[in-house]
Amino acid sequence: MGEDAFRRAFGGYQIVMPEERAVAHRHAASAVRFVVMGDGRGYTTSNGEQMFMEVGDFLVQPSMTWHDHGNLGQEPVVWMDFLDGAVLGPMEATARDEWPDGDFQPVTHPEGYWAGLYGNVRPARLIGAKLASIADSPPVRYKWEDTLPVLERMAAEGEHDPHDGVLLEYANPVTGGHTLPTMNASLQLLAPGEETLAHRHTGFVRYDCVRGKGVTTLDLEDTTELEWGPRDIFRVPSWRWHRHKNLSTTEPAILFSISYMPLAESLGLYRVEDAPAGA
Amino acid sequence: MGEDAFRRAFGGYQIVMPEERAVAHRHAASAVRFVVMGDGRGYTTSNGEQMFMEVGDFLVQPSMTWHDHGNLGQEPVVWMDFLDGAVLGPMEATARDEWPDGDFQPVTHPEGYWAGLYGNVRPARLIGAKLASIADSPPVRYKWEDTLPVLERMAAEGEHDPHDGVLLEYANPVTGGHTLPTMNASLQLLAPGEETLAHRHTGFVRYDCVRGKGVTTLDLEDTTELEWGPRDIFRVPSWRWHRHKNLSTTEPAILFSISYMPLAESLGLYRVEDAPAGA
Amino acid sequence: MGEDAFRRAFGGYQIVMPEERAVAHRHAASAVRFVVMGDGRGYTTSNGEQMFMEVGDFLVQPSMTWHDHGNLGQEPVVWMDFLDGAVLGPMEATARDEWPDGDFQPVTHPEGYWAGLYGNVRPARLIGAKLASIADSPPVRYKWEDTLPVLERMAAEGEHDPHDGVLLEYANPVTGGHTLPTMNASLQLLAPGEETLAHRHTGFVRYDCVRGKGVTTLDLEDTTELEWGPRDIFRVPSWRWHRHKNLSTTEPAILFSISYMPLAESLGLYRVEDAPAGA
Amino acid sequence: MGEDAFRRAFGGYQIVMPEERAVAHRHAASAVRFVVMGDGRGYTTSNGEQMFMEVGDFLVQPSMTWHDHGNLGQEPVVWMDFLDGAVLGPMEATARDEWPDGDFQPVTHPEGYWAGLYGNVRPARLIGAKLASIADSPPVRYKWEDTLPVLERMAAEGEHDPHDGVLLEYANPVTGGHTLPTMNASLQLLAPGEETLAHRHTGFVRYDCVRGKGVTTLDLEDTTELEWGPRDIFRVPSWRWHRHKNLSTTEPAILFSISYMPLAESLGLYRVEDAPAGA
Repeated sequence: MGEDAFRRAFGGYQIVMPEERAVAHRHAASAVRFVVMGDGRGYTTSNGEQMFMEVGDFLVQPSMTWHDHGNLGQEPVVWMDFLDGAVLGPMEATARDEWPDGDFQPVTHPEGYWAGLYGNVRPARLIGAKLASIADSPPVRYKWEDTLPVLERMAAEGEHDPHDGVLLEYANPVTGGHTLPTMNASLQLLAPGEETLAHRHTGFVRYDCVRGKGVTTLDLEDTTELEWGPRDIFRVPSWRWHRHKNLSTTEPAILFSISYMPLAESLGLYRVEDAPAGA
Repeated sequence: MGEDAFRRAFGGYQIVMPEERAVAHRHAASAVRFVVMGDGRGYTTSNGEQMFMEVGDFLVQPSMTWHDHGNLGQEPVVWMDFLDGAVLGPMEATARDEWPDGDFQPVTHPEGYWAGLYGNVRPARLIGAKLASIADSPPVRYKWEDTLPVLERMAAEGEHDPHDGVLLEYANPVTGGHTLPTMNASLQLLAPGEETLAHRHTGFVRYDCVRGKGVTTLDLEDTTELEWGPRDIFRVPSWRWHRHKNLSTTEPAILFSISYMPLAESLGLYRVEDAPAGA
Repeated sequence: MGEDAFRRAFGGYQIVMPEERAVAHRHAASAVRFVVMGDGRGYTTSNGEQMFMEVGDFLVQPSMTWHDHGNLGQEPVVWMDFLDGAVLGPMEATARDEWPDGDFQPVTHPEGYWAGLYGNVRPARLIGAKLASIADSPPVRYKWEDTLPVLERMAAEGEHDPHDGVLLEYANPVTGGHTLPTMNASLQLLAPGEETLAHRHTGFVRYDCVRGKGVTTLDLEDTTELEWGPRDIFRVPSWRWHRHKNLSTTEPAILFSISYMPLAESLGLYRVEDAPAGA
Repeated sequence: MGEDAFRRAFGGYQIVMPEERAVAHRHAASAVRFVVMGDGRGYTTSNGEQMFMEVGDFLVQPSMTWHDHGNLGQEPVVWMDFLDGAVLGPMEATARDEWPDGDFQPVTHPEGYWAGLYGNVRPARLIGAKLASIADSPPVRYKWEDTLPVLERMAAEGEHDPHDGVLLEYANPVTGGHTLPTMNASLQLLAPGEETLAHRHTGFVRYDCVRGKGVTTLDLEDTTELEWGPRDIFRVPSWRWHRHKNLSTTEPAILFSISYMPLAESLGLYRVEDAPAGA
């Protein structure tokens, strides 16, 4: 698999060394980032807000967001990044601008500015018909320190999906819908020893193991087993039966995942099927 | 103005005395409550979550939410309540059920349960096409202690509307859109000495003064002046020019308001017009 | 039942005598008209198109459509008219304008102009995001000579609903959805001797018998029977069990009906329930 | 340009010889066909309706429509076909089924069945929330003999776009919106001698010249001129300035075109810009 094909299928990894810094640009493709390594001193500046990135943080830079990044720490920072450019390409709906003076954008907003605009009480101009387009999404960071407690609380409250354990999605801050019109990102927790039921759906899913160890089994017969542990990535192809198992009987396992489900759903192409009982 | 006409125009006030308790019921009309008095020991239980009510808290009980209330404190609790029943009546789309055993519903969820389900990371089953209807809204409480800081932060960040000062809306927790499909509730802050520009729009607005003192002027000529201070209520009729002025030069003024704007907007009936310059 | 209450529940009837003519006006309330008598020389002029009205024709004048009417024939023309003003009233989202010179609007478009704009090939400016609002609907006439053949063809092709026989709806020419955002109009055919199953739903329905004779039975026990024949009108209240029977064994029966179902549906208030088998 | 790249950019052409016949299949990709040659005896059978194809006819086979084709005439039939598979590929949201018995599907519906279901009076089950998905579209044929008169009537009524002359779109029969969720097809007429103003937009457009002769000019400086006449095809790339000129001073010119605009628009990626005056 060549580098381009790998990137289309799995996304890419970006490593930023201490003192390294990228200049600002923007493009039609939306990008998401999930942080897997670093001491929290790497950052992405998006539309004027500098967002520091700790392990487990998830960042969204929607279409045409100005962004640049840097690392003020002593250690490399590494994140998975995934863009929807492969879908935009066939439409030729691409665009790319460099920051006017070929440099970095200034930090003009306090930390939390963009997410704070879209809280449960928000400027009236950002609600309803006044909002130009359902696709207008701000750049946001979902902090791991905020996300993990939700996952644990939902587990405690009995939130449960038979095919995915506790399955949460990063909601779009504007619409409360899918993360972006093209892609969504999810976080799931498998209880110690949990084994899910098999199902299949259109569209592939790319997984990152955040914690724990487990195995994902593809197909109902002549199965393929994908074992995974921390920092492993794997991929379930479209319309393949699959089920997950947590191989630890004492610790939960946590998976991050990303897919094109929102786009497939909006086009009426998302189908899901449960495996026959006993399969 | 008879009691019924007053209630249709302004909503009603509910006072609950210490130890008083109402039995549970539900109805097709959605209800909202804005707390104006009490020691925080009055509560509404909605779909299994007991929500205590402090002054400034705003609660929503969407269509067919089971609700009952009580007062465990030493003082009366008073809230403004407003229902959309007047709009539902002509359709005969009304319904009312008493709690099966004619009593109170049990508290089955921890405090914050319903709002917590719809945070920025939420169960995947509550996103996108899996959600049965855009009208599915949970009962929620927007706490004053969370809302006031947002209002103050937005003021500090320069959020500003020339006709309304800092104008925030209570967003629907499911869709990020208007508070409810029929009604929306807003909170606005006028800076010391601020005087807004006049405009007019279809649909009336009912105001409660939360803090400060000011005057709202109706019409451009032969004007009517409505002076207001804490706990005053007033109403701007449909399509009447109006502007607001904070009469204090040292303290901000805060108004809570409610209207049928979301319904008018969805029917293409919401129109707004700025007053001519100099008017 | 007073005249106002009757009109809110059943709509009103308008009779226009030969040579009678009304001046043009418009209002926020949308109006629909179903023609029950006349020689085809009565007309309504809507936004510049003069639409002559034959028995069975159905006309829609959406919110803020300029309209006036007259009768160039020798016989009175009579139509049922129904407005959604009762729903708009509580919002105060009403408006009314007289034609600027207090007279008739000129005929500026050929017959069929408005419906013709929204055919299966239509101006690109009238499609998608270029369209200002889903509520922008043109005034249109659905001619009986076009509608009846569709009803008969659908019957021949086996289109069938167990609760309503062949049930067609007048589609909105812009969206293909309900007739209007507030109201929909339907036409149904009961085959000779057909007896439908009982169901109930929120919201009342007002019926006009166009052809044939039958009986509509309300409730499952202690039933009320409403017998009907040509030009009779009747009404099924909200959430009442009802079923229809064609009393002729040789001729089909045809009913026209109107309801607020689209509005109830959009607010999540439309519910429908089938009667238990054997009821 | 290899065959695959050509097909992705321009679509392909299909030629079916007399007596040739293809077996039935279906796939997730939607397909559209515009007929450019033949004696009207070629046909496509779609979900049980046999649609004969005359020059200028436009056919849509939405996602997962069963289709097969044949030619009962004496001459070859040729059509342009265009699929949205390039957009679906990156999502892996593809699927393909062969007709169960590896043969042809039976004709089970009369001609005009599918389009007839979605007329201005249509089965109530096909309207509103009862409709499973906005993506449910039937296979339909837009006959040239019906389409050309609309184009001519709109020209006569003064329908006009400064960048495209008389610009019509094939409306989706279900929603009245774009032809399909991914692609739209348009038809435009340039009056004798007409020269349009330049503009540019995201996404490419593929054109077929149906009648007349003209030139399309790309860019504002160092221009590229694309001359075209009957049966020529050409392509305007994304975000390139372009304007059209009818080179005849006596005959109108007619262009058919297809693009991914609906998908770009729904993702918030469709942008259009007028050229500066005088450019």
